[in-house]
Amino acid sequence: MIAPLIFNGEAIEILDQNRLPDEIVYVSCQSAEETAAAIRTLQVRGAPLIGIAAAFGLALAVRNFSGTRGQLEEDFLKSKNLLAAARPTAVNLFWALNRMERVYHNNKGQGIEDLKTALLGTAENILAEDIKINQSIGSFGEGLLGQNSRVLTICNAGALATGGYGTALGVIRAAHHNGKVSQVWACETRPVLQGARLTVWELMQDKIPVTLITDSMAGYVMQLGRVDAVIAGADRITANGDTANKIGTYTLAVLAAYHNIPFYIAAPHSTIDITMDSGRQIPIEERSHLEIKQLRGINLTVPDVDVFNPAFDVTPGQLITGIITETGVIKAPFRENIEKHFACKRGGK
Amino acid sequence: MIAPLIFNGEAIEILDQNRLPDEIVYVSCQSAEETAAAIRTLQVRGAPLIGIAAAFGLALAVRNFSGTRGQLEEDFLKSKNLLAAARPTAVNLFWALNRMERVYHNNKGQGIEDLKTALLGTAENILAEDIKINQSIGSFGEGLLGQNSRVLTICNAGALATGGYGTALGVIRAAHHNGKVSQVWACETRPVLQGARLTVWELMQDKIPVTLITDSMAGYVMQLGRVDAVIAGADRITANGDTANKIGTYTLAVLAAYHNIPFYIAAPHSTIDITMDSGRQIPIEERSHLEIKQLRGINLTVPDVDVFNPAFDVTPGQLITGIITETGVIKAPFRENIEKHFACKRGGK
Repeated sequence: MIAPLIFNGEAIEILDQNRLPDEIVYVSCQSAEETAAAIRTLQVRGAPLIGIAAAFGLALAVRNFSGTRGQLEEDFLKSKNLLAAARPTAVNLFWALNRMERVYHNNKGQGIEDLKTALLGTAENILAEDIKINQSIGSFGEGLLGQNSRVLTICNAGALATGGYGTALGVIRAAHHNGKVSQVWACETRPVLQGARLTVWELMQDKIPVTLITDSMAGYVMQLGRVDAVIAGADRITANGDTANKIGTYTLAVLAAYHNIPFYIAAPHSTIDITMDSGRQIPIEERSHLEIKQLRGINLTVPDVDVFNPAFDVTPGQLITGIITETGVIKAPFRENIEKHFACKRGGK
Repeated sequence: MIAPLIFNGEAIEILDQNRLPDEIVYVSCQSAEETAAAIRTLQVRGAPLIGIAAAFGLALAVRNFSGTRGQLEEDFLKSKNLLAAARPTAVNLFWALNRMERVYHNNKGQGIEDLKTALLGTAENILAEDIKINQSIGSFGEGLLGQNSRVLTICNAGALATGGYGTALGVIRAAHHNGKVSQVWACETRPVLQGARLTVWELMQDKIPVTLITDSMAGYVMQLGRVDAVIAGADRITANGDTANKIGTYTLAVLAAYHNIPFYIAAPHSTIDITMDSGRQIPIEERSHLEIKQLRGINLTVPDVDVFNPAFDVTPGQLITGIITETGVIKAPFRENIEKHFACKRGGK
């Protein structure tokens, strides 16, 4: 399976997701600035993966630091803020940066080389842990699917969105491995087409049967009785189970409820933001109008039309059948059960 | 207002809708064959307009006929079948061809020049009547909207889809004329982007405020409370009110019901197919995979991925608040009230 991000000891090599599926090209990020730019421009995307990339970006900032020791903390925080500002909605970015900051504070009494080693080691751990977490999500999630399941998904919550293996596609991957998946419906996911470009490519690499549709066809294939489950990833889950994910996810959840099709979110604990009470508090990133108006420089509409381009929407917990995490499937009532999962985690680890 | 189809006495000049909004180019169709090709390739599209174009195409077939009188009927039926095969879902095509056939039979005892005149005159009447019908639809429909309405629409059911003025956009046009429309949300309408290319262009020409979104954003803007009504056109309405329209319409109807937003269909009587009991009988056209896989020759996905590309879906009558026609707004129970509307029409005319 292709690696979306590799640390080569000097820099992170990021698979440029804007050029998939046409070209497999890695770009090198040697600094926090380069990493933040790669996140902003979607060369690296997917909630868990931007957390991983940001952790490495912050480790590289300290690795590259050449000022006096007294200036290091200011430089560290500046780099952290730069990375944090790269994208607002996915909480994994802030989760990873905060974890790095704790390591910084725990090791700032050490020599600079030890501090650098601790930070790079933490970023490497975040990457390695994420792959294991996804395999665990896959294992819990595949238990929810019956034989010959036809699963609909949106965007790319796959190996390409994570350290590897994937969240929503991790569940599909695990279920396919056990002979349970007969078809995946990939919504193309306008405007950036992560479904058409990334999910299709990733599933075809693994010989998992996939059929591409436009986002507008999801309701029709459900009406035809050809969808057994919807599984999506998440960018942020609040304490009550409300879930921000790629624009269009909310529409799929409403459609799934109308057709009595289970609707699952697959995401690691790092995506759950228990500091937020509900989805109303989640900042929704609005991206450039050009994402909708143009495709590779070709005008798709009247150039000066007004456009609304929110990158995410929020699905209320009551439309979610279950949240598949690395410690099990969380079901309603979400506020109570999310709290329990976190309590277990604090108690258990 | 721009005319989507003009008969110049010799040929029909069709505004090439594949080249909008970049270029305003008319293509000349001098025969049934050329007209059928223009319908198949979407140079001319929209249920009412393809009916109009087909009527002219059939009139041109007789105008061009140079064989013996004994061969005329065979040639007429051959041309009729060619035009009928151009697209399967919109019933207006068949309605217009059948009307032309009745005129053919009523006049076949006349001299050939009189027959040609009768057929061309009928096609011209169908065009002129359609504009009046749309103005009437607009007038009935605008009464359903309150002040400062924010209306969401899909595809293009506008002047460009009809003889002029439009069905869904006719309602919006009439309501805007009366100061009632504060915003139109135009769904881009993948895969062929009729919303982005045609509806946006048409509304901007008339200075009606329009905001373009991807199809996947409709649910989110409804959740935000920014939509007061959904109005779509129709390609075929069956006796029970089930309505075939552009793929994605069904999803909008489910979303509208979930958000308690009225969902209207605007269409002339010629779109109602009382010979069909329910939407399950409507043939759904599947179009080329390339519409989804490519955009102006650029690959959007892995070239050999499986694709499903239905051009239409069927919205069940129970999700429709009202069907806006030229004789008034039909509400549930649809089977009974559609029958009444047709009985009135038969009685009244």
